[in-house]
Amino acid sequence: MKGVIASIAPDANVVDITHDVPPQDVRHGAYALGTTYRYFPADAIHVAVIDPGVGTRRRPIAVRTSHGTFVCPDNGLLSYVIADAGTRLQRDAFEMGRVAPPAEWQAYQLTNEEYWVHPLSSTFHGRDIFSPTAAHLANGVPLHDLGVSVIDLSAFALPQPREVPGTAIGQVIHIDRFGNLITNLRRAHLPAGPLRIRVAGQVIEGLAKTYQDSVDILALIGSGGTLEIAFPNANAARSLGASLGDSVHVDSVR
Amino acid sequence: MKGVIASIAPDANVVDITHDVPPQDVRHGAYALGTTYRYFPADAIHVAVIDPGVGTRRRPIAVRTSHGTFVCPDNGLLSYVIADAGTRLQRDAFEMGRVAPPAEWQAYQLTNEEYWVHPLSSTFHGRDIFSPTAAHLANGVPLHDLGVSVIDLSAFALPQPREVPGTAIGQVIHIDRFGNLITNLRRAHLPAGPLRIRVAGQVIEGLAKTYQDSVDILALIGSGGTLEIAFPNANAARSLGASLGDSVHVDSVR
Amino acid sequence: MKGVIASIAPDANVVDITHDVPPQDVRHGAYALGTTYRYFPADAIHVAVIDPGVGTRRRPIAVRTSHGTFVCPDNGLLSYVIADAGTRLQRDAFEMGRVAPPAEWQAYQLTNEEYWVHPLSSTFHGRDIFSPTAAHLANGVPLHDLGVSVIDLSAFALPQPREVPGTAIGQVIHIDRFGNLITNLRRAHLPAGPLRIRVAGQVIEGLAKTYQDSVDILALIGSGGTLEIAFPNANAARSLGASLGDSVHVDSVR
Repeated sequence: MKGVIASIAPDANVVDITHDVPPQDVRHGAYALGTTYRYFPADAIHVAVIDPGVGTRRRPIAVRTSHGTFVCPDNGLLSYVIADAGTRLQRDAFEMGRVAPPAEWQAYQLTNEEYWVHPLSSTFHGRDIFSPTAAHLANGVPLHDLGVSVIDLSAFALPQPREVPGTAIGQVIHIDRFGNLITNLRRAHLPAGPLRIRVAGQVIEGLAKTYQDSVDILALIGSGGTLEIAFPNANAARSLGASLGDSVHVDSVR
Repeated sequence: MKGVIASIAPDANVVDITHDVPPQDVRHGAYALGTTYRYFPADAIHVAVIDPGVGTRRRPIAVRTSHGTFVCPDNGLLSYVIADAGTRLQRDAFEMGRVAPPAEWQAYQLTNEEYWVHPLSSTFHGRDIFSPTAAHLANGVPLHDLGVSVIDLSAFALPQPREVPGTAIGQVIHIDRFGNLITNLRRAHLPAGPLRIRVAGQVIEGLAKTYQDSVDILALIGSGGTLEIAFPNANAARSLGASLGDSVHVDSVR
Repeated sequence: MKGVIASIAPDANVVDITHDVPPQDVRHGAYALGTTYRYFPADAIHVAVIDPGVGTRRRPIAVRTSHGTFVCPDNGLLSYVIADAGTRLQRDAFEMGRVAPPAEWQAYQLTNEEYWVHPLSSTFHGRDIFSPTAAHLANGVPLHDLGVSVIDLSAFALPQPREVPGTAIGQVIHIDRFGNLITNLRRAHLPAGPLRIRVAGQVIEGLAKTYQDSVDILALIGSGGTLEIAFPNANAARSLGASLGDSVHVDSVR
């Protein structure tokens, strides 16, 4: 992929975000993209290739938003970027569906083979479609030259926190490489007063501020702005046997 | 290595291909190099350091080809690049030997210590010989200044497919990080008609086009242009107990 | 972190040294930094974020030395850089303490929030403090604008070799990704004459020059300039059950 970019757009500044997404784990990749793209310049071009459906009818797309242009398979990788723009799929947790992108976005299916590498493989579109497309965009090729406009995008229905009097109920939506459990509960979701957090059969009293505030399991607001469960200097997911989708309860104990 | 390059050639654009080659696995590194170099610009300088023999009499070399300049130990890392140029070693599978490079290539043993980092270690020539040499080449130092011309290069004898009436017989020559089994069988090697693939005691009927065409083991032509055995969303090498060198039979069942 | 740098200093040349430091292992990170920084240009800015104490009272710092500027938490990551400058903490092995930096260094605690990313998280200062600070330094912001001068820095007391007549006694101070045991014994520490090395219950006769000089366990002077114990094509730490801090004896057998 980098060779293709270097061949087409030798002056492009190529930055790796991560190569550690587990194979085929589109949700993990979507989270990585969703928590990093805003820290890049608004004119950055993001290439994301977690692509288990490569070669099938899933569409290759390029999407220009108000904060970044994305080149990737249309398989849910943009779920968090789409959610940031206020568009949500009304479905059960992590099911896949289609949503209309915000009116100010430009979304294209990549169909113009002139911008691809040939011979085209059916198993590595990262090299043959996504990278060369991104490089041509970096060179100034207009988006509308790449293919045909699309009116919907694939997205996971991201689980939404629920609130009952005195309790916020969220889910584990990501497990990072330290084993920390990242939830979908923002500070605004949490009830007032002293808090008790319940997850995977454990009870945690109160919110910590840093990973060093306890020698035992703790909860804090992490760098993505949501509640996170961690074991200082250890792997919380492994220690608790916790998994993606596990529910997390935060009770007010006032 | 990158610090050395940044010190000598600060404007060089350094691109990582992979740091995931298993330690000491020269054949794995040779495959990675052989399947990527053509996607880089023809004037790219490739530094490859899988170097279990570092400090021994194996020669450090720089080789300019019609598609890229290579700086590496002379230990077989260029086997696929050499084979692409039509030069083959007539030996049994994966044995090492020496071949004459194509007439239009320039091949030099690195002997001019002026272009090395000092004090020279005996265990990290990636830092002390290969990186500084590549950086000086990027700065325009001519190849013939680096050392003495050589007339042969080390190469693995890459296993060649055989054909008997109605059947092509190949080998597993690489296992990628997804566990897919990559063979040396190109489409042109395969017999005509409906196909049956036999590998590691398994039988696969027909060629798939994508990894999603089956929920079970499948065979397809991969991104390197050769037959590949894969398990959708799983690790074929581990599931089948398959290894490098395993034979793969493709029968015509017409 | 790279997005933040790209946003503030788009022309900066960002180089990855390693992302393979085990989580929370400050000593490992300190060694990686201590053995690489001298190979970079003297005006390079090094960002090091092994930061288990993120969000606590540990200070974020920027330190300009005669060979590189370092932006990192003040948690011992600079121990080897400080030792290279001749400043040593007189304590037992690997204990933490504070030392005065050399007079010609400039050391600042980062307190000027103008150069940080906001909202500031309490768990990812790599993104919110260290990266933007490094990017502003690359843009020419003077060090003294970043915060307040400090007069001491945290450092591990690096274990020092001892010598008794005929024997040098050192420690394993690092285990690299190949499993090689790196010690603190430089060639100058070793006694004269033929040598016998004792480590983890094993005895090795003589010094090798390369990893191929034996099919069994061997000792040689590694690329960092110190004695190293290795198993050719295998993992010495795992084979010997050796750990950080293990003692290594080198006897003269003349």
